Amino acid sequence: MKKLINDPANVVIESLEGFADAHQDIVELHTDPIFVARTAKKPAGKVGLISGGGSGHEPLHAGFVGFGMLDAAVPGHVFTSPTPDPIVAATKEADRGAGVLHIVKNYTGDVLNFETAAELCEAEDISVATVIVNDDVAVQDSLYTAGRRGVAGTVFVEKIAGAAAERGDSLAEVARIAQATNDNVRSMGVALSACTVPHAGKPSFDLSETEIEIGIGIHGEPGRHREAMTDADGITAQLTAPVIDDLKLAAGDKVALMVNGMGGTPLSELYIVYRHARKMLEDKGVAVERSFVGDYVTSLEMQGCSVTVLKLNDELTGLLDAPVNTVAMRKGM
Amino acid sequence: MKKLINDPANVVIESLEGFADAHQDIVELHTDPIFVARTAKKPAGKVGLISGGGSGHEPLHAGFVGFGMLDAAVPGHVFTSPTPDPIVAATKEADRGAGVLHIVKNYTGDVLNFETAAELCEAEDISVATVIVNDDVAVQDSLYTAGRRGVAGTVFVEKIAGAAAERGDSLAEVARIAQATNDNVRSMGVALSACTVPHAGKPSFDLSETEIEIGIGIHGEPGRHREAMTDADGITAQLTAPVIDDLKLAAGDKVALMVNGMGGTPLSELYIVYRHARKMLEDKGVAVERSFVGDYVTSLEMQGCSVTVLKLNDELTGLLDAPVNTVAMRKGM
Repeated sequence: MKKLINDPANVVIESLEGFADAHQDIVELHTDPIFVARTAKKPAGKVGLISGGGSGHEPLHAGFVGFGMLDAAVPGHVFTSPTPDPIVAATKEADRGAGVLHIVKNYTGDVLNFETAAELCEAEDISVATVIVNDDVAVQDSLYTAGRRGVAGTVFVEKIAGAAAERGDSLAEVARIAQATNDNVRSMGVALSACTVPHAGKPSFDLSETEIEIGIGIHGEPGRHREAMTDADGITAQLTAPVIDDLKLAAGDKVALMVNGMGGTPLSELYIVYRHARKMLEDKGVAVERSFVGDYVTSLEMQGCSVTVLKLNDELTGLLDAPVNTVAMRKGM
Repeated sequence: MKKLINDPANVVIESLEGFADAHQDIVELHTDPIFVARTAKKPAGKVGLISGGGSGHEPLHAGFVGFGMLDAAVPGHVFTSPTPDPIVAATKEADRGAGVLHIVKNYTGDVLNFETAAELCEAEDISVATVIVNDDVAVQDSLYTAGRRGVAGTVFVEKIAGAAAERGDSLAEVARIAQATNDNVRSMGVALSACTVPHAGKPSFDLSETEIEIGIGIHGEPGRHREAMTDADGITAQLTAPVIDDLKLAAGDKVALMVNGMGGTPLSELYIVYRHARKMLEDKGVAVERSFVGDYVTSLEMQGCSVTVLKLNDELTGLLDAPVNTVAMRKGM
């Protein structure tokens, strides 16, 4: 294992320390318990937004803390859910009297620990609403999940719900918009290589020099099937067609298209995937109105990508376009 | 070789097509000859800025085309200099009557072809000034270079000269500021793995499971030496100390610090490197005033990173902070 790390036990905290030092204008690191919050204090009455989950998916979630998206992010150990304790602390930090939305990717550990934290917060009279993100169309149940997994669609939920909270919507309304975003977003991914969790020290699964895994999860969970390596257009078709079908897209629909890198894929290759995914949508008469290409929800150094499509309507487009100032996503005020 | 590509011969053009489709608000692709220019037409009298070089270093350079940075970028084949023809075309596109600055990384092919292009442009009465970027302290001469190589410091030259051009500085003044930036920036990199050029189909060099290459070039050119893999702090020290020495940094100095990923390195690891590089600077009494952590100048899917330090003064800081709206760097207007 060759990684730019020191003691594997300190990977998460050392990385967060660097992150917080580098971006002091946007984020601050809390260490007891560990979570990342905005530096700027939020106005009273603004609904709080928090998310979290295992580390190893950077920039998710801490990279999306800031104006227009999250108020705080709770990172667990690599690929390990955070415990309820820091989730409670982050919820209290994010609360400004109007309640807090928990954005939770659908993994059993995350769901349970956020649920426990929500109950503890409610007992202290903090209103909590929860949206479970489950955008991955690849498989119905999976290694760590009952039902569909939550993957890169989470970024759209955080962006759109964040914009709703910023304009002063109530907790119920922010939760409704977050749910509407989740209902309109679908994803599917592929792995060309496995990744190595630092404390494990070896690849999380074996994939030969000529194989790829279609429908991979963001922790290397099995997908739909393995097959021989083929070209980018062929792979892109296998990711994009199920997404189009599941969203029941038809001529005249408008979408946002995200091609997300898993961490070890050159940006140039993501644009080749984007090119063909866009062509497939346009061939169906679907208009690609907004585009996101890059590393948003990664799996350490895994090579591969995912295709995410968000079906737009005027409300979602307006909120997606709203100003944002986070480390990993910025758009002018 | 497993890559998200189709025919290796079409990697660059297909990637550029995806890039231009995704970001039509910022860039447009010219195809005969191939270069990327801003969508928005520049005002008459603004100095033009162009750069270019072999592809495979994305987001450099096309990701930095837009308000506040480049007017056009000229990509060659992967790791291959563009010919004079597209450089001339991009220069003409960028010219608004006030001349054009060529920002050229110090590789023999790039220098020769930009020089030829500059002569052809001058013959058509377009004023061209050139700055050669040579920030890499690792080696004096290298596989494709006489003198030091140009690496991630190029991003600071493009950002700072771009801001000077945007405020209306003359060609001579923009060239002076670009040169001042280059004179104050130094970099050094490390590779944990090689990368594979698509049309070659095999890794550009061999590096065993336990070795790293200190002082690597962005095309995998040999650096200072190979050694056994060690921890992040040890590696960071080997990259940062020569940069600090070469810049003759002393207590009271102010700097911008960039930790640049080579393409296949998890973002979390880049922050671990940043953390220690920053500590080394602060231990010397040097203030880290601006920070950049991410993939700016890559080598396809190479695992590794570089450390770049720019010594700041009030002029450079002001221009570094100026608004920018490119695909790979955005800062509010």
